[in-house]
Amino acid sequence: MGAGSWGTAFGVMCVDAGEPTTLWARREEIATEICEQHTNGAYLPETRLPDALEATVDPERALDGADVVVLAVPSVGIEAQLAAWGPAIPRDATLVSLIKGVDVETLRFGSQLVSESLDCDPARVVVVSGPNLASECAQRLPAATVAAGSVEARTERVQRAVMAPYFRVYTNPDQTGVEVGGAVKNVIALAAGMAHGLGFGDNTMAAVITRGLAEMVRLGAALGGQALTFSGLAGVGDLVATCTSPKSRNRTVGDRLGRGERLDEVVASMNMVAEGVKSSRAILGLAERAGVEMPITQGVVAVCHAGHHPSELVDGLLQRSAKPELYGL
Amino acid sequence: MGAGSWGTAFGVMCVDAGEPTTLWARREEIATEICEQHTNGAYLPETRLPDALEATVDPERALDGADVVVLAVPSVGIEAQLAAWGPAIPRDATLVSLIKGVDVETLRFGSQLVSESLDCDPARVVVVSGPNLASECAQRLPAATVAAGSVEARTERVQRAVMAPYFRVYTNPDQTGVEVGGAVKNVIALAAGMAHGLGFGDNTMAAVITRGLAEMVRLGAALGGQALTFSGLAGVGDLVATCTSPKSRNRTVGDRLGRGERLDEVVASMNMVAEGVKSSRAILGLAERAGVEMPITQGVVAVCHAGHHPSELVDGLLQRSAKPELYGL
Repeated sequence: MGAGSWGTAFGVMCVDAGEPTTLWARREEIATEICEQHTNGAYLPETRLPDALEATVDPERALDGADVVVLAVPSVGIEAQLAAWGPAIPRDATLVSLIKGVDVETLRFGSQLVSESLDCDPARVVVVSGPNLASECAQRLPAATVAAGSVEARTERVQRAVMAPYFRVYTNPDQTGVEVGGAVKNVIALAAGMAHGLGFGDNTMAAVITRGLAEMVRLGAALGGQALTFSGLAGVGDLVATCTSPKSRNRTVGDRLGRGERLDEVVASMNMVAEGVKSSRAILGLAERAGVEMPITQGVVAVCHAGHHPSELVDGLLQRSAKPELYGL
Repeated sequence: MGAGSWGTAFGVMCVDAGEPTTLWARREEIATEICEQHTNGAYLPETRLPDALEATVDPERALDGADVVVLAVPSVGIEAQLAAWGPAIPRDATLVSLIKGVDVETLRFGSQLVSESLDCDPARVVVVSGPNLASECAQRLPAATVAAGSVEARTERVQRAVMAPYFRVYTNPDQTGVEVGGAVKNVIALAAGMAHGLGFGDNTMAAVITRGLAEMVRLGAALGGQALTFSGLAGVGDLVATCTSPKSRNRTVGDRLGRGERLDEVVASMNMVAEGVKSSRAILGLAERAGVEMPITQGVVAVCHAGHHPSELVDGLLQRSAKPELYGL
């Protein structure tokens, strides 16, 4: 449900995994292009889609008979969208959430938005998250991801549904940990981009990633996640890709801030707001509620929402008192 | 003790941390250059060393009155070297090992080589390891590291000794974990370089790093290390820097292998053998003895020592059976 870049790439992988797959697109011209030209030029230029990938603008047709429903819509307005689809979703279908980040108003993660909007059993929701740049997945470059949920039969069903020859899917029961990873990484990527833009080196980048991971683990553990999840694909894997890839939007925004541009200039020149700018405040809100220290996140909020200079973030981190490494874990 | 690039950079940071520091150099011309020109052109070109950094070729002068002795010599021939210095090392001095990797013959880590060569209490040894490219440290770019040992007073002494304003030192009691991290990362960096050289993308890189981390955790846990250590600077931090930095020797070797060069050609064109080529076999030996699966390491050994093509490594990983993410942890 959703024919943006990640929804479309996910559909490609499901077809390559041998699943009959229908993509729901909001816009008629995109559905037509996918069916007739086997391309989606607006979202995945240069990718030839498999002939077997179908598309429609009719949600009832897309949902008819589906035992796995993949939700790949933007988080803005998702509650109304899901409520409208609700009656057409097969009663026991597994619901796959590709939604990342935290809702700024209610501090809820994607899986909660899904189950509460549909008023359904949370056990039906499987979260898929990992280092998966959509364009690279669509090019069939080797990649791996995590399918997380509380019911093994459902995570294994999703594993089979999308395990294309070039795409490894690992199951993990720790959905909370996986969702914390997918949200926090965008904030740390802003800080990593700033460090790069300020002219620092590979040591600094590795330190930001590692200490960012420690923040992710502290918050995740406080919310009920398992520390080891953050050593996995949805934790450190996605964090590394988002912090180091020039294709990452959040890193790019941070890099430009580090070079001295103002946030409003950067935002004005991009099509989309980087997720981390919005969710940094929500994540800091969760951390404060849980009594967890997140100095990098705090620094990102100060830069993005209180006009601090990125160099203050780095100075602030270096001046903290000497500590044992596993402090607070 | 040792005026190569890392020994010299470490000395710079000790001076910047306020410690009176004397560097022992094997070659007279290097000691003279450090004392008179305040440079070490052979190992750290473009770096101006602090005036307060002294240097000598006389080990007794360097060791006289030292309460912290930093061992920054190559692992080849280290046992004889340490035995010769033994009588001059102050009786209760803390011994800092900067030695990475595993001895191929005896499968021992650096801390063990130190305590056994000196026939001293292993509790005196502190291992320092983290994402610390020497050239960047000497340029005073922000970085962080771990000081690991069983005696808190000693790790905290080392923390104070090298905590320059731009260099954060975290203590960690898990010396085994820290040493496993420092050894395994070089092997994974070879695989990461191969993936890059084969033309794969950022998703693949993140997956190699993450699954490489899982191998590091499995081996480390089997040898008595703590899983959380591998989420830290000496685990994932050093792994990320070594796998993604173009300055990393091991990554560079892997990259050239991935592009189709033969190992003997690559080795012939470099001044030094990449540590991971040698230690991959030792690490696989440790894994087999401990009954731990390390498929990436196995693939690296097959490429470096049995003539396999790097693409077989990637194919082999993708074809493994579907698994839960925390399998074997």
